Amino acid sequence: MGIVVQKFGGTSVADSKKIKNVANAVIKEYKNGNQVVVVVSAMGHSTDYLINLAGEITQKPDNREMDMLISSGEQVSMALLAMAIHEAGYPAVSLLASQVGILTESVHNRARIIDVKTEKLEKHLSENKIIVVAGFQGITKEGEITTLGRGGSDTSAVALAVALKADRCDIYTDVRAVYTADPRYVPKASRLEQVSYIEMLELARVGANVLHPRSVETANQFNVPMRVRSSFYLDDPGTLIIGVEDMEIYRPVNGVAADKSQVRIAILKVPDQPGIAARIFGALSKNNISVDMIIQSLEEDNANNIAFTVDETDLNSTLSILEEVRMNLGAKEIVVDNDIAKISIVGAGMIDRPGIAASMFEALAEQNINIKMIATSEIKISCLVEKERAHEAVRALHSKFELDDENAEADKVKL
Amino acid sequence: MGIVVQKFGGTSVADSKKIKNVANAVIKEYKNGNQVVVVVSAMGHSTDYLINLAGEITQKPDNREMDMLISSGEQVSMALLAMAIHEAGYPAVSLLASQVGILTESVHNRARIIDVKTEKLEKHLSENKIIVVAGFQGITKEGEITTLGRGGSDTSAVALAVALKADRCDIYTDVRAVYTADPRYVPKASRLEQVSYIEMLELARVGANVLHPRSVETANQFNVPMRVRSSFYLDDPGTLIIGVEDMEIYRPVNGVAADKSQVRIAILKVPDQPGIAARIFGALSKNNISVDMIIQSLEEDNANNIAFTVDETDLNSTLSILEEVRMNLGAKEIVVDNDIAKISIVGAGMIDRPGIAASMFEALAEQNINIKMIATSEIKISCLVEKERAHEAVRALHSKFELDDENAEADKVKL
Repeated sequence: MGIVVQKFGGTSVADSKKIKNVANAVIKEYKNGNQVVVVVSAMGHSTDYLINLAGEITQKPDNREMDMLISSGEQVSMALLAMAIHEAGYPAVSLLASQVGILTESVHNRARIIDVKTEKLEKHLSENKIIVVAGFQGITKEGEITTLGRGGSDTSAVALAVALKADRCDIYTDVRAVYTADPRYVPKASRLEQVSYIEMLELARVGANVLHPRSVETANQFNVPMRVRSSFYLDDPGTLIIGVEDMEIYRPVNGVAADKSQVRIAILKVPDQPGIAARIFGALSKNNISVDMIIQSLEEDNANNIAFTVDETDLNSTLSILEEVRMNLGAKEIVVDNDIAKISIVGAGMIDRPGIAASMFEALAEQNINIKMIATSEIKISCLVEKERAHEAVRALHSKFELDDENAEADKVKL
Repeated sequence: MGIVVQKFGGTSVADSKKIKNVANAVIKEYKNGNQVVVVVSAMGHSTDYLINLAGEITQKPDNREMDMLISSGEQVSMALLAMAIHEAGYPAVSLLASQVGILTESVHNRARIIDVKTEKLEKHLSENKIIVVAGFQGITKEGEITTLGRGGSDTSAVALAVALKADRCDIYTDVRAVYTADPRYVPKASRLEQVSYIEMLELARVGANVLHPRSVETANQFNVPMRVRSSFYLDDPGTLIIGVEDMEIYRPVNGVAADKSQVRIAILKVPDQPGIAARIFGALSKNNISVDMIIQSLEEDNANNIAFTVDETDLNSTLSILEEVRMNLGAKEIVVDNDIAKISIVGAGMIDRPGIAASMFEALAEQNINIKMIATSEIKISCLVEKERAHEAVRALHSKFELDDENAEADKVKL
């Protein structure tokens, strides 16, 4: 008996049949004696539908009105889910973020949650009701509706779990578990029974789009156990995400991922003087562009080459900002490389074990895959390689670090 | 220079092209120097779509969750309209009923507005913004979302006009004006330049579905001039709805309408004793069934026949309630007549002019149309006739009371 937060994404509530299925998953937890709070995303492609409608009207929709528009999607799915729970004979009530009091900063389209009021939630839980909450949305203290950005419903779920001191936060998705690599490209990818928050975070950042990084960060900060599981296989425990200190076993490398959505930009021959990097990356951050890998190398005649990667959707705005910076700095030129993929190995276990980086480079060399750029953190090593060799590189590394599951393919058929 | 409230129904905002058209209508008022508050309904058939979704999940949706579900529709149209106004280069902000503070009673599906807060509206108006408000919805003082029932957006518009002491409340709809009869059945129906609140109210009640009666009642109570007009003919002034005392001219009869949605129920041979009618109609009203015409006639052996009409959608529930009442009262039997249409003539001018009823009966007799039941009020006379002769009856009365417009057909082509 405890509080369980469950989150169901858009594909899990895509139509009325699937919503009934979700109602069963919810009722299963409730019948186990738990107090249940459910967070839902908008139905299937309904958010895309709304975004297209806006696109028919304007190419530059106002951020505030966009939040107003798309936050209507969760209102639909949550009301329908509450009805489906009623229909099955159980008490339920749906609540908008504004009704719960999910307070965010006053930023539209990608607000961060700053507080979750628990008064109304606790009142309904004390009346033994299942509570269905609209994910992805929040409200500012001025009463403006905000949205949390991509994957925001995961963050809503974790924030509710933290506020209610929930025992568990289960994220239901369209995969059965977190895998050591993307099963679409790595047939021998194996299931992870457990993965640590920091590994999950690094995996999320390098293209394993199972969970939104911000939700994992928050769960890590407040030590809320998360579980990734499938709404179509309710008996499958999925993958548990916990602190490194709570992990039963850990391997040096727990996952391999490829991110093909980045481009590399280099500014060549920047005169060597203090504050250069700050000027370049300050200008980008002011324009809200996230930079990933950064490398600076000193060339001969006292000039630097600075290279970094950004998401390809930010390429044009990055270039226009950078051209101004280049002229001011007197740098020679800007070079763009589109043909890259970032391959990363992630593992909390690599901290104590030397030689992991060397093994990674060796594995790529064995396949004759050229490395264009390298970046390392405590639990992750990333290399840029040619885009078309990305999956080959992932498979080689997956095998090198003994992650292959020889029985995996049979398991995948059941997915 | 004044405050104008404009209301656009679902057909006026059915797609992005129509929403842009509405933006033009709004901007036209704004450029005339007015402060503009716009009330919108949900897009086209979107409410039906949501109701169908609910129907796929349950046959008995919870009223609260139904309000949660369908109130999402206005959120979409209002955000899109605000975007379209921005796109045309004018300032706009959309507000939900909860953000404005449109307070209603704590009843779901057909709540009445009890107060409209003006603070937020006045703040945005003082910043010269066009305000787009979600129609049809409200909020209780406990923060629950309610809806106002059929035609509720008209009521939202009038309530906002009253609260803001607006100079005008323009209801844009898919007709160009209010006509003396339904132009689909009466080719010679003529436009009304002006009509009084009480006439409009009676016309609405007898099947001229241009405006929701509650909105007209409210406008009458607070003396807000309403105008019915077309969003596709912005230069057409439509029909002005004002107090009888403000009308420039008035005819004894201003409109003829047919309502084919009623059935007549009769309880035969009810023993004559006090309180019988109260018992019958008390039982119906307790079950929220609206009764329209009521006639009681004293038969020979101290027994009454009581006949009345209800909307055909209420027939089954009426019969089951009535059967119990019949047994308790010892009445003989219950008889249902489905084959009826209620034909009404409406006119504030009939108060001072005798002989209007006689002319009505005469006109029907001339066509050999049998009258099954008669009811009169100060400004309306209604007769039940056979359903299949309804339109013929309307045309005969329209002609009798000199409402025919010989040039009307040419005008109608332009509709």
